[in-house]
Amino acid sequence: MIITLIGGTGDIGEGLALRWAHDTAHEIRIGSRDPQKGIDSAKKYELELSNRGQKRTVLGGGNHEMTIGADIIVLSVPPYYIVDTIKSITDAISPGSIIISPAVGLKRDDDGNFYSSPPPSSRSVTEYAANASPDGVPLIGAFHTLPAHRLSDLDAPLNFDTLVVGDDAEAKQIVIQISNEINGLRAVDAGALANSAEIEGITPVLINISKSNKDMDELGVEIK
Amino acid sequence: MIITLIGGTGDIGEGLALRWAHDTAHEIRIGSRDPQKGIDSAKKYELELSNRGQKRTVLGGGNHEMTIGADIIVLSVPPYYIVDTIKSITDAISPGSIIISPAVGLKRDDDGNFYSSPPPSSRSVTEYAANASPDGVPLIGAFHTLPAHRLSDLDAPLNFDTLVVGDDAEAKQIVIQISNEINGLRAVDAGALANSAEIEGITPVLINISKSNKDMDELGVEIK
Repeated sequence: MIITLIGGTGDIGEGLALRWAHDTAHEIRIGSRDPQKGIDSAKKYELELSNRGQKRTVLGGGNHEMTIGADIIVLSVPPYYIVDTIKSITDAISPGSIIISPAVGLKRDDDGNFYSSPPPSSRSVTEYAANASPDGVPLIGAFHTLPAHRLSDLDAPLNFDTLVVGDDAEAKQIVIQISNEINGLRAVDAGALANSAEIEGITPVLINISKSNKDMDELGVEIK
Repeated sequence: MIITLIGGTGDIGEGLALRWAHDTAHEIRIGSRDPQKGIDSAKKYELELSNRGQKRTVLGGGNHEMTIGADIIVLSVPPYYIVDTIKSITDAISPGSIIISPAVGLKRDDDGNFYSSPPPSSRSVTEYAANASPDGVPLIGAFHTLPAHRLSDLDAPLNFDTLVVGDDAEAKQIVIQISNEINGLRAVDAGALANSAEIEGITPVLINISKSNKDMDELGVEIK
């Protein structure tokens, strides 16, 4: 499959790109608002894999260009960019493709990190992204709780779960499958899109635990 | 220490009573609105421990009576009973004791299980309980995400975490310590009381995962 990481130049997009490129045979593409940044990141990932003895072609470029022909489109962008990002790639999205939203609404004050639901009326960022997606293209929520730096460090073992939500059963199964192909990651069906808010809320819990415990950092969650 | 399980006749109160009685030397007391029910449950737990070759005295009775002299008071009651329950035991609570709130606000509809914040203005059930507690008695949030049946089955291994929140650092450390004394349970400092809502929200996530996966039931969470 062709997997395009929109916003694949950093944060969780970088980690997913590296892990899929390293652990699977899927074709990985890196999209960015600035095409040169997409190209540069793709080259950087190729070099990192090459340093590990793995010859891999990673394509990079603008978001629109990298979306054409993609089977899977991961929207690795902050919540406030989601609508504009989807609008900018809508006419490049193929019928039959799947959009994945990993974004989480976070806010922070003196008492810690909190879940912040997005405007205007969605309960979760995931549903907000689903509402902004083209008709007939299923949006699946996944990767909300993954720690970005640990994910992008190919030497770091994961051994945790990602919780996957969606209203299209077939698309959800495909996302579960390609998530399970990442070594050390287990994808768990966590229900419908309507169940996203509480899953997104796990991310501030993990950040608060990191702040409260010197020996706990870049945390994930395992359901057991 | 003397640990009183208010509402210790079922649900998570039963499991905590059995685990602490089995794994530690703390004095365990079972409170109920109906004193006879408290006595009967205490006898039942004594019998279960006796069947495992462990001679243990568990005291049972009314909530008020069982609160007198308790060092730790666990409010194992549904959210809508919390205020009345605290009122009914307030004059029995010793200075220097600690209240623990494990209650979670849950609602359910056709789309799954959701976190339901309590009335009137608290963000979480834990803060709602803290607001109803006597001045000077610290309330600590813990045990929100523990599966009741697995907890009360002494043959079932736990191997998961409980996330502990509170604004009184000393009281929080005591709760973390007595939680860690339960075999297979690790207590993790998860910040201030203000961070309770997202932790309580993990419970509906665990229930939704159980509903979506035939082989996953009575789930807990491990942070790693």
